[in-house]
Amino acid sequence: MRHKYRKGSSFERELKRLLEKEGFAVIRSAGSKGVDLIAGRKGEVLIFECKTSSKTKFYINKEDIEKLISFSEIFGGKPYLAIKFNGEMLFINPFLLSTNGKNYVIDERIKAIAIDFYEVIGRGKQLKIDDLI
Amino acid sequence: MRHKYRKGSSFERELKRLLEKEGFAVIRSAGSKGVDLIAGRKGEVLIFECKTSSKTKFYINKEDIEKLISFSEIFGGKPYLAIKFNGEMLFINPFLLSTNGKNYVIDERIKAIAIDFYEVIGRGKQLKIDDLI
Repeated sequence: MRHKYRKGSSFERELKRLLEKEGFAVIRSAGSKGVDLIAGRKGEVLIFECKTSSKTKFYINKEDIEKLISFSEIFGGKPYLAIKFNGEMLFINPFLLSTNGKNYVIDERIKAIAIDFYEVIGRGKQLKIDDLI
Repeated sequence: MRHKYRKGSSFERELKRLLEKEGFAVIRSAGSKGVDLIAGRKGEVLIFECKTSSKTKFYINKEDIEKLISFSEIFGGKPYLAIKFNGEMLFINPFLLSTNGKNYVIDERIKAIAIDFYEVIGRGKQLKIDDLI
């Protein structure tokens, strides 16, 4: 369990550094239920639940997502599920997730609704060189 | 040191519960430098550095206050130094603090510029019965 905990918090620290480089003030939560990071920049507020996995398929507890959504509605900020998946950082609007069970399934199909870091911070989709040619 | 740390975080938890009862969404910071709690309620953001002491006089590091102010300006929220002092909870606008040294001195005189919890959350000064008669 400790290894999994350490991997999660290193992703949080990485995302915190990225956000700070873009001019956000960021806090990492001491608790761990549903909200891991909150970032603000002159009134623009982004709220993140961070999940990381080296597997090609993993599950996220519905309760954590509900907590992320309700916290963001009370606070007044945009919620994102931030996942590190096969080394790639993806962001999902939690309102787009659906399940008929107790957990959400995260696999390759999530990419259809995921956006990247630059879209989250409002700098449009980061065009990769191969997108241009 | 561990006793002092535990006392600090119990004050943070107490303030977190009070804010949540008033309808705020609150995060306790995993770090400890300058910002301990951030609370939001539909876009209204309050940012706290919490200090507690059983002494009648204690010192607060200027650097912590500067971090609280700069974080709040970037994030876009109202900063407060929250102190628990002889059992009483007081809130100070950090911009009102002054010192010509490396630390701010907190003693009875701080009450002249301190406000109470209800003023912080915008419900006006909590009138005590003896204020009324």
